[in-house]
Parts: sequence; structure tokens; C-alpha cells
Amino acid sequence: MSKEIPYKIYLDEKDIPSSWYNMRADMKNKPAPLLNPGTRQPMTAQELSGVFCEELVKQELDETTPYIEIPQEIRDFYKMYRPAPLVRAYCLEKKLGTPAKIYYKFEGNNTSGSHKLNSAIAQAYYAKKQGLKGVTTETGAGQWGTALSMACAYFELDCKVFMVKVSYEQKPFRREVMRTYGASVTPSPSETTEVGRKILAEHPGTTGSLGCAISEAVEVATHNEGYRYVLGSVLNQVLLHQSVIGLEAKAAFDKYGIRPDMIIGCAGGGSNLGGLIAPFMGEKLRGEADYRIIAVEPASCPSFTRGKYAYDFCDTGMICPLAKMYTLGSSFIPAPNHAGGLRFHGMSTTLSQLYHDGYMEAVTAKQTDVFEAAEYFARVEGILPAPESSHAIKVAIDEAKKCKETGEEKTILFGLTGTGYFDLVAYEKFNDGKMDDYIPTDAELEEALSRLP
Amino acid sequence: MSKEIPYKIYLDEKDIPSSWYNMRADMKNKPAPLLNPGTRQPMTAQELSGVFCEELVKQELDETTPYIEIPQEIRDFYKMYRPAPLVRAYCLEKKLGTPAKIYYKFEGNNTSGSHKLNSAIAQAYYAKKQGLKGVTTETGAGQWGTALSMACAYFELDCKVFMVKVSYEQKPFRREVMRTYGASVTPSPSETTEVGRKILAEHPGTTGSLGCAISEAVEVATHNEGYRYVLGSVLNQVLLHQSVIGLEAKAAFDKYGIRPDMIIGCAGGGSNLGGLIAPFMGEKLRGEADYRIIAVEPASCPSFTRGKYAYDFCDTGMICPLAKMYTLGSSFIPAPNHAGGLRFHGMSTTLSQLYHDGYMEAVTAKQTDVFEAAEYFARVEGILPAPESSHAIKVAIDEAKKCKETGEEKTILFGLTGTGYFDLVAYEKFNDGKMDDYIPTDAELEEALSRLP
Repeated sequence: MSKEIPYKIYLDEKDIPSSWYNMRADMKNKPAPLLNPGTRQPMTAQELSGVFCEELVKQELDETTPYIEIPQEIRDFYKMYRPAPLVRAYCLEKKLGTPAKIYYKFEGNNTSGSHKLNSAIAQAYYAKKQGLKGVTTETGAGQWGTALSMACAYFELDCKVFMVKVSYEQKPFRREVMRTYGASVTPSPSETTEVGRKILAEHPGTTGSLGCAISEAVEVATHNEGYRYVLGSVLNQVLLHQSVIGLEAKAAFDKYGIRPDMIIGCAGGGSNLGGLIAPFMGEKLRGEADYRIIAVEPASCPSFTRGKYAYDFCDTGMICPLAKMYTLGSSFIPAPNHAGGLRFHGMSTTLSQLYHDGYMEAVTAKQTDVFEAAEYFARVEGILPAPESSHAIKVAIDEAKKCKETGEEKTILFGLTGTGYFDLVAYEKFNDGKMDDYIPTDAELEEALSRLP
Repeated sequence: MSKEIPYKIYLDEKDIPSSWYNMRADMKNKPAPLLNPGTRQPMTAQELSGVFCEELVKQELDETTPYIEIPQEIRDFYKMYRPAPLVRAYCLEKKLGTPAKIYYKFEGNNTSGSHKLNSAIAQAYYAKKQGLKGVTTETGAGQWGTALSMACAYFELDCKVFMVKVSYEQKPFRREVMRTYGASVTPSPSETTEVGRKILAEHPGTTGSLGCAISEAVEVATHNEGYRYVLGSVLNQVLLHQSVIGLEAKAAFDKYGIRPDMIIGCAGGGSNLGGLIAPFMGEKLRGEADYRIIAVEPASCPSFTRGKYAYDFCDTGMICPLAKMYTLGSSFIPAPNHAGGLRFHGMSTTLSQLYHDGYMEAVTAKQTDVFEAAEYFARVEGILPAPESSHAIKVAIDEAKKCKETGEEKTILFGLTGTGYFDLVAYEKFNDGKMDDYIPTDAELEEALSRLP
């Protein structure tokens, strides 16, 4: 007889994972290395450490160590908002009338409103430990910038955020949260950097782009003593830190002897999905267990499902290293859909390799379907989800409905990466019936892919 | 040797209180009854039940039953976001260098962003049980309206919210959350009610007031078959439901054998404070224990500290029953400070009686001091607090600093009622150094108090 499952499974604080799990250690085919865009040779630790913190460079390049200890200072910070609950969606199941058992790992339970804090605090810690004065970064939708501001406030590090100008103006509240946490927030492009001035001279009145903001942040990090650049997704180090999501979820399941049949996560750069699936994928890679793993991406930015597995630039400015990944081409500009965190043209190299090797599936979801699922979920489960997270909700509901048809009692886990408090302009459009869907044409995709380096 | 206290003390779901606690049962001097404004006689159950749900009228008038069972349906809903954590503010203590032990009960851990949901779900439940079609209410800042929308979505009740027009226009995001949860939100005054049309005719272009919104909500509730009016603070029934906050906090403390020396809460209409202190006040009333209990109110709206204990109207429109309470006069219009939830001219009748009888203290805090404390707290404890809650933070920090001077290891509990995601206009003003303080003059207060009924 099994124990009664509560609505929310909380681990004890002492059970917060003491190590991160590095999926690459169990991969037979390792993800392809980052290449120097000039020499086309793998980036060395020395090359990377001009831009990134030393310890993070080590983590970025480490393909063999399965478990990397989480420093105590980071674990102490984790205790302020972790363990995050693994929630049994009893109300959603009842409403759907499904025999499926639906669980979600809720990572929106902190002021940054998303899972981004898991890696932000780690990156800030290593910067502090290296004796740096501060870090620079870019932010679009603002989740990463907010998380990094919080982490830097905790370690009393300077934090310089370049925020895409259009977001700076349209999302003043995100900007104010960052300022409240002591970050300086500069609309990008700005007059404060060489690259910013150049772009402004060439394109007066531009509202900026993520690629431009990256360029400015990297310039400030490399031209100022005691600064480094940090990034909130795509990189291996970020997936490593985010493994805390999956490790906690698995520990919570283990407490009740539960094994999920399928794991569903939204996929932009891959930070959430890579973190959520990490320990489950580890078992799959080692042949110890099997799980269906499903990446959900927006129909407007379908890197896995319609992209190409090839070397490409990570930024639109084409100054960053080349990464082998599923990509739509660094010149591809996705439609202005409301899941800002899923608008990256590429994908984590690790997840790309795993997808290429058949360890996971990928599907797309249309924006209006995603918001319909978001609203349905909000009304029955109480939480207002972020548009990004709602991609996973949409597919979880679809799978639960299939179980209703077949009568199968499958156990579904999905990642609820964050809350939608700063996305109400999007909800308003949906409530007013004014939301569009956008699916790129084959011709558009071919055009962008034809420019791969 | 005592057990190690975690950062967050979570109760098990089975330990969510099964009954609410009714402070009035242990009060020797009962709060004075509501009076019919026409006859000046105590309101009868029959009179009240034209406006309120029957079961809620019973609770409103019940002065003798100490524990009232929480129906299972409500407890099931509570499980979606409760137990709320009792947090040990280790980081704040360290930063302050205080020997004090600081705890806060965090009630912002749900989409409504505040404790209001505790009573909203109870009121929606009783409305549903009575077979009603829906409920009406007013909202100013929007916390209560949001909570009620969520509760009504859960029980599939119609929810009509009259939102003060200026808030409707200035807080579009709050409005959209309510709409996402299926509520109809009408800017008040509106053309949809008789009283609204009358006010619009008399004051064309008015941006509305809480008093006017109450009048419209009551009119719709009483003129439509199957509707009742519900209210988020001040009333005894609301304090009863909110006792779940204090009961959980006490149970969490008891788990570790801890007894707080002082309990601090912000005070607007009294719903949070009355709920937080309930079981502690019970012990104090029964002579079983002593606690220092401190209400914190804004310097701009000081009902306890500068008001009069007298019968007054609860609304500016003077259509509601008379309540004996600490009041600044129903014609007093507080300055437009940013703690919208603390701008009520009066106070819960129960808390008023307890204050009058010397069972609690009250202090005021200035707006800029409150935001300074809010930002300080956000940076060390990670949570972005609501302006209302930050009044309690300010005084908790002051008390912890006193302990640093005296070396006393006092245990401080304060109520962190909610989050500040929808208050970033206020944070922006503070970050820009543009925030004002406002303290009413004696002459202003005398003028408003001279008009008491």
C-alpha cells in the first residue's frame, strides 16, 4: 500500500542536493566543443577565461566529472527559496477527468519569478570568490537580469545589465525590480560602449536586440578590470547548475517510490529543460531506466523541430564562439511572441547532441493554444504561469487527455519554470482575443539557414 | 539541546488547521455590535443576510464559539498554497548583526500575492454552498479582487468586481489577472448601477473612490437574484478566516519549542494583523502567556494612534452599518500613499476593542522609511515585499536593532503579508528619490472627526 501523496512534496532543507549532476559525463557522444570563430579551433580555457570566471570555465569544459559539489555558500542561498515543491496537480487531474497522474516542479517560487536564480547565484558566487568587482550581462524579457541582480545583491557584487531598449521601455517593472536589487540597468544600444555608439551611428533610433546587448555586455566585461561576463542559458555550466531542479524532483519522487513515465519541459536555450531532465536522462544514458522526454518549443521559433544541426554563432552580432547546435540561423529573427525566454535561434549543445542521438523528442505549440492552456491551468491550479512555462503545460494537458482516451494511468512530470506577473500585457491580448499566431514559412527558414557560417 | 531551525519551517499538509479560531470567544469585553444606520439598533442576522451569505452572517455574529471547523472543500483549496512557510530570517539577522531571532510568516506565496486568499476562498465556498450564482465586491489596490477572482474561478461562481476607476486605469495588470481568472471588472463609478449613474451625473469625470465602489457592489448584490456582497477586511468573519495564518505560525513554532516575544503586523482594516495574532492573543486573553503585540500603521493613515474610538460608517458613501472602531472619520481621505491596503479610515471592531483594552500597542511608520526597509529586506532575504507588509518589516528591523544595543536575544515574529510585483511604480519613485511622506495635521484630523455620526 502506497503512502498518500500530498498536494506539494517538499524535501527537507538538508536534502537540497549537495552536488550538481553533469549529464555530459554519462554521454557517449559528447557535445561538440565551442570553436574560436577566427581559428575554427576549440576554444581553450585560457581564451574563455578572458570573458568568463575561471571556475565557470572549468565547469564549461568538464565532460567527465559526473557530480560537482555545490559550495556551502550557494547551498545557504538555495535555502532561502529551495527546496522548490514538486506539486501533484490534483485539481487539474480532476478537472480533466484523466486517469493520468500529473506533477509539476514549480520553480517560480522566488522573487525573480523563474528558475534562473539557480544559476545566477552560482555564477555570482564564483565571481565573488575570484575577487571580481562585478559582472555584466544582457537581458531581454528580464528574468535572467532580475535573477542576477538578486544574486549580486546577496554577494555585494556590482551588476551591470544591458537591457534591450524596447524591453527597457516596455517592461519598466522588470527594470525597477533590478534597480531595487541595486543593479545598474542600461538600455541597449547605449552611448556607454564602443559597439553601442557604432550601432547607434549606423541605425539611429534602433530599439535594440539581444545580440547587440550581448556585444555591449561583453565589451564592458573585457574592457574593465575586475569584471566578467555571465550568461543565463545555453552554456553547459548553466545546465549543470540547473540540474538542481531535476535532482530535487527525482528525490521527491523517490520519497514516494514514484517513477514518471514522461518528462515535459519548454525549450528556449535549454537551461530549464536541461536542468529538469538531468538525473532522469542520466539513468537513461546509463541504461538504468527509460523515460519519454519531450521538449516543447514555440511554433514561432522551432529550433529542434525545423532547425539544422550545425555550427553557428550564439549571438546575432556574431562575436561569440561557434556552437554546434540545432539552429534556425543566427540571422533568424523570431516573431515578437510573448514567450521572450524561448526566442533564441539556437539550443544548448548538450541538448542538441542528445536530441540528435534520439534520447528525446521535440514538439511545437502555437501561442494561442499555449495561452489557452495557461488560463485553464491558472483557474484550476491557482498559479499564474509564465508564457514560457505554459508551453509545457499545453503538452502535459494534451498527454493527460490522451490518457483519458486510452485509460492509461501514466505519470507525467512537467517543469513549471516561472510565474507570469510581468507578462500581463500578453494575457490582456489573449483576454481581448487579439493574440496572433506566427509560424515561419519554409522559405524564411531556408533563407536564414543559408547564411550559416 | 534544541533542534536546528531550518530557514523555512513547513508544516505537513495534514497539519493545516482544521478549525479557525474566533478571538471574540475569549474576550471579556466583546467588540461592540454593528448598528443599523437608520434605527441605531444592532444589525440582526436577517438584516445582514440580505447583503451577506447566511453562513457568513452566522460567523459575523458568533461571539462565543472559540473554534469553527474549516470545511473540507476549503482545506483542499488551502492545500494548493498552504501551509505557508514560517521563515527564519537568518540572512537579515546576520546583516543586522543582531542577537535577535527574527521570523516571518510569509503569505505572499500564491498568485493573488497576499493573505487575502485565505478569506476569499471561504467566502466563495459559502456562497456556492448557498446555491448562489455569484458575488460582488469592490477593490482598490487589487489584492482582494484578485484573491476573490481566483476563489470564484475554483468554485465556478460569477465574480463581479468594481474597481476604483483610477486604479483600473493605473493598474491594468491587476485588472488583467482578475480577467484571466474569469472575473468581470468594471471601473467605478460606472453607468451600470443607479448609484454609479447618480455619482457620474453629480461629478462628471470623477476617478472614483472605494466608498463609491462599495455602493455599486452592494447595489448589484441586492438587486440581482442569486448574488451577495463580500468584503476582504474589517469584518469579524474575515479575521476568523485569517486566523489560519496565526494558527499555522504557532504550530510551526511549537514544533521547535519556540515562543515569540513580540508579534508585529501591519494594520489597515485589520485582516492580516487579526489573523496573525489570533492564537497568541487567545493565550494572552486567557492569561496563559504574554506577548508584546504591535500594530504598524502608515503615518499618513493613523487610525489607532491618532483616531477616536467611536461609532462611524465603514464607507465614505455612508450606506453601510455603523461600527464602533478606532476611526479617522469616514470623510477622512488619506494621502495617496503606496500602501493601498492600509488606506482605510477605520479598523476592525475586534482589534479596536483589544487595543482599547490595552492588549496591544500601535506605532506609525513613514512611507520613505518603509520603502528603505523594504529594499534592505529584499536584498538580503530575496523576497520583494508589498508596501503594506513593509510596515511590519520596518518595525521588526527597528526592534532587532534595539536588541543589538541591549544584547537581548528576543524572538520577533512579523507578518509578511504579500509581494510587491504590482507596486513597482512605487519602488520606481523610491529608487528615483521622488517619494514623499505625508502626515496629516491635527487640524485635518479634527475636521474629519468632527463629522462623526
